[in-house]
Amino acid sequence: MDKFKNSVGLVETKYFVFADKEDKLILASGQKLGPVTLAYETYGKLNSDKSNAILVVHALSGGAHAAGYNSENDKKPGWWENMIGPGKALDTDKYFIISSNILGSCYGSSGPTEINPETGKPYGINFPIVTVRDMVEAQRHLVDYFGIDKLLTVIGGSLGGMQVLQWLISYNDRIRSIIPIATSSKLSPQAIAFDEVGRQSIMSDPNWNRGDYYDGTQPKTGLSIARMIGHITYLSDEIMQEKFGRRRREGRFTFNPDFEVETYLHYQGSVFVERFDANSYIYISKAMDYFDLEEEILEVGKGKDYSGNKVLILSFSSDWLFPTYQGKEIVKKLMALGCKVSFSEIISSHGHDSFLVDVEQQSLMVKYFLQGLE
Amino acid sequence: MDKFKNSVGLVETKYFVFADKEDKLILASGQKLGPVTLAYETYGKLNSDKSNAILVVHALSGGAHAAGYNSENDKKPGWWENMIGPGKALDTDKYFIISSNILGSCYGSSGPTEINPETGKPYGINFPIVTVRDMVEAQRHLVDYFGIDKLLTVIGGSLGGMQVLQWLISYNDRIRSIIPIATSSKLSPQAIAFDEVGRQSIMSDPNWNRGDYYDGTQPKTGLSIARMIGHITYLSDEIMQEKFGRRRREGRFTFNPDFEVETYLHYQGSVFVERFDANSYIYISKAMDYFDLEEEILEVGKGKDYSGNKVLILSFSSDWLFPTYQGKEIVKKLMALGCKVSFSEIISSHGHDSFLVDVEQQSLMVKYFLQGLE
Repeated sequence: MDKFKNSVGLVETKYFVFADKEDKLILASGQKLGPVTLAYETYGKLNSDKSNAILVVHALSGGAHAAGYNSENDKKPGWWENMIGPGKALDTDKYFIISSNILGSCYGSSGPTEINPETGKPYGINFPIVTVRDMVEAQRHLVDYFGIDKLLTVIGGSLGGMQVLQWLISYNDRIRSIIPIATSSKLSPQAIAFDEVGRQSIMSDPNWNRGDYYDGTQPKTGLSIARMIGHITYLSDEIMQEKFGRRRREGRFTFNPDFEVETYLHYQGSVFVERFDANSYIYISKAMDYFDLEEEILEVGKGKDYSGNKVLILSFSSDWLFPTYQGKEIVKKLMALGCKVSFSEIISSHGHDSFLVDVEQQSLMVKYFLQGLE
Repeated sequence: MDKFKNSVGLVETKYFVFADKEDKLILASGQKLGPVTLAYETYGKLNSDKSNAILVVHALSGGAHAAGYNSENDKKPGWWENMIGPGKALDTDKYFIISSNILGSCYGSSGPTEINPETGKPYGINFPIVTVRDMVEAQRHLVDYFGIDKLLTVIGGSLGGMQVLQWLISYNDRIRSIIPIATSSKLSPQAIAFDEVGRQSIMSDPNWNRGDYYDGTQPKTGLSIARMIGHITYLSDEIMQEKFGRRRREGRFTFNPDFEVETYLHYQGSVFVERFDANSYIYISKAMDYFDLEEEILEVGKGKDYSGNKVLILSFSSDWLFPTYQGKEIVKKLMALGCKVSFSEIISSHGHDSFLVDVEQQSLMVKYFLQGLE
């Protein structure tokens, strides 16, 4: 099929289960979780000495399906199709790519939508609070399962970038390098504020019902508003001017959405509620708020030798949710640890979404960085 | 009393009524409104030739009460106490200040909370949609009522700044100068997007009941979320770092607000719903979205001689809702009309709120500008 050209083509999401006996996963909160499921996909082939493996980790609303198509009828490919495939930056002719879902997700991994073995009903908000450290801990079990001693790199944007940083701090001996993109060592209070408004919007929807809505309908209105807020922060003033300007329907005397930017946001909200879970949104956004590289270094990253770890940090000029100054803060912190750090700010008008949609420069940077590791 | 020092002291809000006979006010939409009430306050004394009058106009959630205290027990003075009073930038020893409320407001002027004479019940969303042009039209009636032929200046920030610009376009022969602050010739699509999310938040609160809630309780949850979103946009990343950083309660495993910035926003939301009306929020934010200086020039401002109109435009460095580039766009447009334009960007970390809270430089600029008119 034509869409399979330059693509990894048909792929299958798989499910890795661990901690399914007495060996529960101990979370950063001290709570225990088990069994633990992680959805994942792989692209390319693992070489004989298992030295060509790359771990791809995703952002708030992503999943394991990062490239190719899960069925012949799929209209859209995975979320990073423009980065993963034959000849692309994450070249499936050379590398073995593992794309892992996260704890808390609604895309097949352990999270609030999963059945709580103790009650036989979905966890809802009885699912324990998970942190970025916990997400990485689960992924480490997946990497063990493949028998991979050292990952060539871990790469991801936004929350993905936080997982990438956590990999360095938790398991620097299990990785050669990391590529954190469009991310931060900690969210700014402004970003936390946006997250909290999104959560409040969900939790004040009567359908939320304290997270216990799986028998009925989920809080679509609240989740839709949370997504609308999110979308504003993922774009930039610049790209909104380019895309929508102030174009509107004729007339100007209605309370219905009439500016194109309003219609766009409503559409984004309405499609999101069909594919995502409101409780997952709460869990994952909270994990982002709590992530703090400095704290992780103190708690799990001290006294390690980071001199063998190479780092490529990328930020985007119009990203105001994870601004370039935050990328530079990561540079400082990781240099202080002794890592070999490269940094680049890529000029793009696409805001925080740049790492997903405007990948030409990003692809080159990643490709050269990976070549430099060979 | 001590708090009356350097203050205009005790003041009374008054109510001006017009269009109360056959003479309805014709709105920009073509709809008719009458009778029309405008709440207003005055400070200082009108001189004998009525040449010392300044009109102060307010932002989204403001009212006529701009300075002094409405009662001895008031804990807080009016919203621009730091700008209006004896010896201050708007010096009540020299000038006669009229502070006018706007159409659509819930602070005593005609708006959705007012009784519809045709039904004997509050208008709700049957109140006609009002524009910035309509707000200024009503204010012009108030200025007529005082017998003032020419205002010395019209001054205001944010939506106030839009009214100021509209005064120039609608009635440049009735004013000597204008001082638009922290404002824009038109909202960016990003700002429209934030407004729309706020409105959706209100309208999706079950208590909104299509605007017909005056028998019960208003949609507090939705209005509170709208206010929280607004507050994020009124501050800056910078000042949030200064004020809150990432300080939080002990621990990090709760869905309750625990970061200080979250608690702050919740507080702001909760006090706002006690003082403001949800329908007013919808009407006034929509008027802001629709305002477009270019359209106003074409529709009501063409062929006039603006060479006698002086303009002082102020923007603030950390204001990302009404960024400096928008202030400069106003400069260009008003210079093209033939106005005498001065512009200054004031360095402040307080974001859009700077014009309310960080007024030292602003005061100097306004004071010198007014002296230059004498």
